[in-house]
Amino acid sequence: MLESMLAKAKTAQRVLAATSGQERNRVLTAMAALVLEAADAVLAANQEDVAQARAEGLSGALLKRLELDRGKLRALAEGLEAVARLPDPLGRGQGVRQLDNGLRIEAVHVPLGVVGLIFESRPGVALEAVGLTVKSGNAIILRGGHEALHSNRALVGLWRQVLEQEGLPQDAVQLIDSPDRQWATALMHLRGLDLLIPRGGAGLIETVVREATVPVIETGVGNCHLYVHAAADLDMAVHILRDGKVGNPAVCNALETVLVDRAIAREFLPRAWERLSADGVVFHGDAETCALIPEAVPATEDDWRREYLSLDLAVRVVSGPEAAIDHIARYGTGHSEAIVTNDYAVGQAFLKQVDAAVVYWNASTRFTDGFQFGLGAEVGISTQKLHARGPMGLEALTTIKTLAYGQGQTRDL
Amino acid sequence: MLESMLAKAKTAQRVLAATSGQERNRVLTAMAALVLEAADAVLAANQEDVAQARAEGLSGALLKRLELDRGKLRALAEGLEAVARLPDPLGRGQGVRQLDNGLRIEAVHVPLGVVGLIFESRPGVALEAVGLTVKSGNAIILRGGHEALHSNRALVGLWRQVLEQEGLPQDAVQLIDSPDRQWATALMHLRGLDLLIPRGGAGLIETVVREATVPVIETGVGNCHLYVHAAADLDMAVHILRDGKVGNPAVCNALETVLVDRAIAREFLPRAWERLSADGVVFHGDAETCALIPEAVPATEDDWRREYLSLDLAVRVVSGPEAAIDHIARYGTGHSEAIVTNDYAVGQAFLKQVDAAVVYWNASTRFTDGFQFGLGAEVGISTQKLHARGPMGLEALTTIKTLAYGQGQTRDL
Repeated sequence: MLESMLAKAKTAQRVLAATSGQERNRVLTAMAALVLEAADAVLAANQEDVAQARAEGLSGALLKRLELDRGKLRALAEGLEAVARLPDPLGRGQGVRQLDNGLRIEAVHVPLGVVGLIFESRPGVALEAVGLTVKSGNAIILRGGHEALHSNRALVGLWRQVLEQEGLPQDAVQLIDSPDRQWATALMHLRGLDLLIPRGGAGLIETVVREATVPVIETGVGNCHLYVHAAADLDMAVHILRDGKVGNPAVCNALETVLVDRAIAREFLPRAWERLSADGVVFHGDAETCALIPEAVPATEDDWRREYLSLDLAVRVVSGPEAAIDHIARYGTGHSEAIVTNDYAVGQAFLKQVDAAVVYWNASTRFTDGFQFGLGAEVGISTQKLHARGPMGLEALTTIKTLAYGQGQTRDL
Repeated sequence: MLESMLAKAKTAQRVLAATSGQERNRVLTAMAALVLEAADAVLAANQEDVAQARAEGLSGALLKRLELDRGKLRALAEGLEAVARLPDPLGRGQGVRQLDNGLRIEAVHVPLGVVGLIFESRPGVALEAVGLTVKSGNAIILRGGHEALHSNRALVGLWRQVLEQEGLPQDAVQLIDSPDRQWATALMHLRGLDLLIPRGGAGLIETVVREATVPVIETGVGNCHLYVHAAADLDMAVHILRDGKVGNPAVCNALETVLVDRAIAREFLPRAWERLSADGVVFHGDAETCALIPEAVPATEDDWRREYLSLDLAVRVVSGPEAAIDHIARYGTGHSEAIVTNDYAVGQAFLKQVDAAVVYWNASTRFTDGFQFGLGAEVGISTQKLHARGPMGLEALTTIKTLAYGQGQTRDL
């Protein structure tokens, strides 16, 4: 089944690649309008999913992520319009070079081709991610979680309706319309798929990265650290720590661990505890932390590894920069790491030696985000090193094609 | 075993990443000198491989690829010196951006980390490829073919000697010192390896791409086409065809198939045959070609798919641009494709619709090459779309790290 979906996607993509930016933008704005027009049908489909999920015992944050309402649909529609307003990522060149023999070569941005997306829960992804792929001239094959099947069906149906209205092939957007796990596995091995992006929890991402033989971009798992150096401005450090932990604990650029120099632990930790405990933060500390903060829960090895995504915070006292950098090298996920210090040499060493997508000096990790970085819209945040690293804008959905204009140049004759 | 090699490589790479370009260049120039100094030992090791390969029945081009001599070593040493003279690919930034809140963010090039290389025959790869990885601050784990084990051992031994001399960790360059196939398989699944590059024949590359779960860059397989349009300058077309087929048939940017418009086939094919048959080229033609060129061998489906790497040429008569583009979409490997035409609209459509790393208009496919493109030295030619496409220079062995300089900026507080 997937081979035939891929073949249809490739054919559709060739048509999409030949369209102008204007035509692709028209698809997005038409979809933004249709989503609001068809809101009743979308919300009814979504309520089927929600009712079933409730029956299966889903609740709290997970149920909230699954549920759509008019406000969310309006925001998603506005998001599509915003993407339509972004500059066209296609066709832009990197400058012509003329070789000595007169051959002119020029690398230009073209679509990747067919993108696969495996995602969980949030049906809004079927609007956001598809908007980005259509804008960048790619076809997409979606595989959502079984819990959102009705919602995803409704939304993908609208995309296909809009594509047809605009005279473009429907198969540029296809949904794997079955909850069976075998299709996710098959998608991970679908030779010819240009890119597979997993969006969801750490378990899903780990499975895809470990199993897939098609090109994957690993996104989103952030075990982010703040290192408070002996020469830190402690007020700034508390402020940055609080922003990273309390601002929005459920996101990947939130802080999970703070590393504190022994020299200032006795001064810093009580201040941090006073401020953050008022917000409901729980400290999971090593022995030295627990000695200073009696309310702290003793940390285990697992606490250094976990992405809590909650008001929990791992706290460790370290001997200095080297120990902090070692800890991050061992437990970090290469997402966002920060230091607070006023020491020039220590700050420079931290920036140089810490291996992560974004490394901050005296600022919050919460800025690792496509909108914050001025990319406009975000495909995800890559924590791998190939192709894209950090916040991925539309350009991450393109590749380079070199065009060469000659007058009969040959190499060996 | 591989997990411990990887751990040692990571530790060594952190040291290498902290070196200056000058220090890394010194390793390359010292190695260039040592290779010539130790030529006797290297050639003796190589002769062991050659003797064994002969005993196993290897001959011709394959044996020639395996064999080293003083001239080849001298050329390889000069290659290392040339790489040392290239600009440092590390540290270069893409320009600072200052966000509205004053946070300054800057993306800079940093090493990928640990690169794996699976290669066949040519022991020179253990000089060229290692030179590029050391220059770009990466550690490398090599897995060569069993036929070159003694040669690879000797060369990797010299690299480690030079690294030690220069005060750098030897484990930046490691060889999997066993001919057992299980290690190649293990390398393809070594979680934490930042990049795996296969260098060798189509079989090796296909195996790695199909099996590997670590990030791979697919290189080198080129089923390249020349399309001779009805409005072509036929002299130019013959010249470009001959350059692509006869210049150096054993390389990936050589031509394998020519597609000829029906309208000019009767004029073009006899001229092409007259010129190329004198060079020893064999035509494998479709029915129309065979009717015009009685000496042509009838082509089968297999001929459209094959990368001959020899003086064989597949020849097909097509109805026009659409049929030519369809043929290329079906059989091409996304490497290099060319059209000869003086028709503006047809040339533009070909450049736009053909999906390949490099698309040529009135020029030979033989220019797809790192040196020709002015990159100086080449890691390989990527035929995939993620990270790198086409000739890969030193920059393809780097990734981006974003450095963010703040004064206490927070996002939500």
